[in-house]
Amino acid sequence: MQTLGSDLTRLLGEGAVLTEASDLEKYESGWRYGAGKTRLAVRPSTTAEVATVLALCHERGFRVIPQGANTGLVGASVPDASGDMVVLSLERLNRQIDVDAVDRTVRVQGGVLLSQLNGALAEQGLVFPVDLGADPQIGAMVATNTGGTRLLRYGDVRHNLLGLEVVLADGTVVSGLKCLRKDNTGLDLKQLFTGTTGVFGVVTAATLSVVPLPRQRAVALVGCADGEAALALLQTLENHGLELLSAFEVISAEALRAVFTHQPRLRNPFGKGDIPAYTALVELASTLDERRLNLAELLEDTLAQHVETPAGDGLTDVFLSRSDEAWDIRHHVSESLRSEGRVLGLDLAVPRSRMAAFTQAVRAWVAATYPFMRVCDFGHWGDGGTHLNLVWNPADSSLPPESLIPVVQREIYDRVMHEFDGSYSAEHGVGPHNQGFYNLYTPETTKGLCAVLKQHLDPKNLLGTTRL
Amino acid sequence: MQTLGSDLTRLLGEGAVLTEASDLEKYESGWRYGAGKTRLAVRPSTTAEVATVLALCHERGFRVIPQGANTGLVGASVPDASGDMVVLSLERLNRQIDVDAVDRTVRVQGGVLLSQLNGALAEQGLVFPVDLGADPQIGAMVATNTGGTRLLRYGDVRHNLLGLEVVLADGTVVSGLKCLRKDNTGLDLKQLFTGTTGVFGVVTAATLSVVPLPRQRAVALVGCADGEAALALLQTLENHGLELLSAFEVISAEALRAVFTHQPRLRNPFGKGDIPAYTALVELASTLDERRLNLAELLEDTLAQHVETPAGDGLTDVFLSRSDEAWDIRHHVSESLRSEGRVLGLDLAVPRSRMAAFTQAVRAWVAATYPFMRVCDFGHWGDGGTHLNLVWNPADSSLPPESLIPVVQREIYDRVMHEFDGSYSAEHGVGPHNQGFYNLYTPETTKGLCAVLKQHLDPKNLLGTTRL
Repeated sequence: MQTLGSDLTRLLGEGAVLTEASDLEKYESGWRYGAGKTRLAVRPSTTAEVATVLALCHERGFRVIPQGANTGLVGASVPDASGDMVVLSLERLNRQIDVDAVDRTVRVQGGVLLSQLNGALAEQGLVFPVDLGADPQIGAMVATNTGGTRLLRYGDVRHNLLGLEVVLADGTVVSGLKCLRKDNTGLDLKQLFTGTTGVFGVVTAATLSVVPLPRQRAVALVGCADGEAALALLQTLENHGLELLSAFEVISAEALRAVFTHQPRLRNPFGKGDIPAYTALVELASTLDERRLNLAELLEDTLAQHVETPAGDGLTDVFLSRSDEAWDIRHHVSESLRSEGRVLGLDLAVPRSRMAAFTQAVRAWVAATYPFMRVCDFGHWGDGGTHLNLVWNPADSSLPPESLIPVVQREIYDRVMHEFDGSYSAEHGVGPHNQGFYNLYTPETTKGLCAVLKQHLDPKNLLGTTRL
Repeated sequence: MQTLGSDLTRLLGEGAVLTEASDLEKYESGWRYGAGKTRLAVRPSTTAEVATVLALCHERGFRVIPQGANTGLVGASVPDASGDMVVLSLERLNRQIDVDAVDRTVRVQGGVLLSQLNGALAEQGLVFPVDLGADPQIGAMVATNTGGTRLLRYGDVRHNLLGLEVVLADGTVVSGLKCLRKDNTGLDLKQLFTGTTGVFGVVTAATLSVVPLPRQRAVALVGCADGEAALALLQTLENHGLELLSAFEVISAEALRAVFTHQPRLRNPFGKGDIPAYTALVELASTLDERRLNLAELLEDTLAQHVETPAGDGLTDVFLSRSDEAWDIRHHVSESLRSEGRVLGLDLAVPRSRMAAFTQAVRAWVAATYPFMRVCDFGHWGDGGTHLNLVWNPADSSLPPESLIPVVQREIYDRVMHEFDGSYSAEHGVGPHNQGFYNLYTPETTKGLCAVLKQHLDPKNLLGTTRL
């Protein structure tokens, strides 16, 4: 590996190659999950340099982990513990952002950060609408197929991806940077590299469809007596304005209470009153001026009308809210729960019509089986996703978390998969963190196809840590 | 094949198998293109029966062509001329349509017609928004990845597809009928079967995301002095109401004149005045009530405001129109052009910001090279698609159409692909009709992957006529 390091330095220049332990530290650990070891990180700044790195590693049989901003939640971007993997960081592939406002597309290098992309787009009144708490790189967003809070309106990365440039394990550059919305010519190659965590190739650039920045948003927090009331509200909002709805998030009482306990600066709209079983965060967004359509009035009217119907019986409170205040509450749920005790966070999806039944079933089962655990769920009910967090005080359990977690995870995942036709990874993707569950739940046909693709695209099995 | 016929009759029942020439005729020819021969058509009515048919054909080495409603435009659904292919018609797989209104999804069998699906959805106030002139079957829509006139708003079939059930060439049933909007667990298997014309497997059922039926539409016909004026209008409409825009179609003067010549019942809004170089059909649609937002007023205001800006200089006329009248004009373009002479219809896409430059370049080139041909273009400028039709009187050319067409096609496709980074098949897909161009323009990486997938999924090479 030492020879590889000096050869890469010769080819890519001094600053491109890191070998000092102190320099390597930040490339070894993920933002929240995943930690490994490396002796060499290389930071190419062009697609050609990425190809050079991969070709050399391929020739000499070195395993490579492509790495973005390391914000993923399944450990797919960090090297394994062996110390034998080369970290291929895309962080210097971050200079090109070519916006075409008439086309409503942007061609962007893989290492550009989401915030950086949206900064450049905002200058032309545009935005890439895949909205997240973290600030990942675009190439890694493709490899992860990131979802987020506004998927209901705009879809995930896959839905907004028009073209892709990928470098294969042997250094072959596959150029498919078209920016066409219609190009129906057989197999859509880019789909193979979307959501497959970089094990089939390294995403070095992408063309994306973007949208005009909204001119206004209106947000309400709506108390719901139970999950079914939240679903009934969602249906009304969609039937009377789906095209304006940009988020429908739901927070359980347990999760919301944690926010107001640990974030005293955040105003609790329920005041001294009870926090209802579920609170929906409803957001409308539009590119229309307020004088053409006032979204706050529309939202107020729609909610008032819903309350008048039998379906609205389950609403307990309606607060029109400042957008930043409401989102501040929503974005502090995870952090607040971690202040409450040990957290097992599950990123689940079920058919959204079954979301209320699902969370109720899990609550009943947890109460009966692990009475010391609290179900603190919140998430993207508009698209059937929920971050079902279990919170407990480890002192209350005879089992240590390391023994308890895999058992509980398995039991809940089994229900999600077998009873609710759901997903054990709604939006975080797959990686070493959930590899065991991938192995357990993935149909053999899919695994067989992945093996065939891997054999063809990376025959020496050098790219990535996830085994699809 | 006679033995196969009687064995299939024994397994599937009398009505399932057709062998008489008179019965087979309708399975041998496409709606507009494609004609072949068959001695056996089989019409299974369940997925299990599809599996039985395919397993038997596989065992005995019979080639099979899966067939929907035969409305495709690239000949991918008809048997070849050999007479040795078995037609596998999905037409009796048309009974199940399971709507879940809260989920906003539908699970539907592959042989259900689009009109039948939308009939069932309308009862619950919903619609599958991929909008076409033809009435195809859902399974074939997946295999073709159908686009249509409202792609700008709703995307193509791929964008609305949540789950898929496919039967492989050897009769293996691959069940993936989930209805999740978030399920980020590695390779998205259904993408391999979308737009690949059934050569990797036969689509027997799908789960689709659907939307509420709009409560109102507003339509305008807008005269544009040139293509750039149409693009400027598109940009204004998107910046002030993208979420409400549901179609942006553009018709050239040559194409529009043909409509009014051959469809005297259709009212010409330009009256005795000149027909402008391009006419845009603009449609807004919303699930909001008129009293919340009046789309006709909004459209009128937005157009009036655009006219006041420098970008609006290129507009020649603005007519608010009845939706059915405007669409009647648009939907009669193809037919009217066929009344004008011989037509070569090209289904092209370019980056939409380059659409005006592209059509201008083609016009100049055709005028210089084939002065007897007229460029009569129209199409989906909102998503960069255009049906560029060339119309001529064969008597004016020394070359017969059979010799002329491949040359002109090749020359225009070469420009689309090499000068404009476009597509030679924007939405019609690929099939025997454009196989030669597929072979010419498809990157080797894609062909290599398709070969590997085909070898894995259909090792005896029995399914379909397209060679990906």
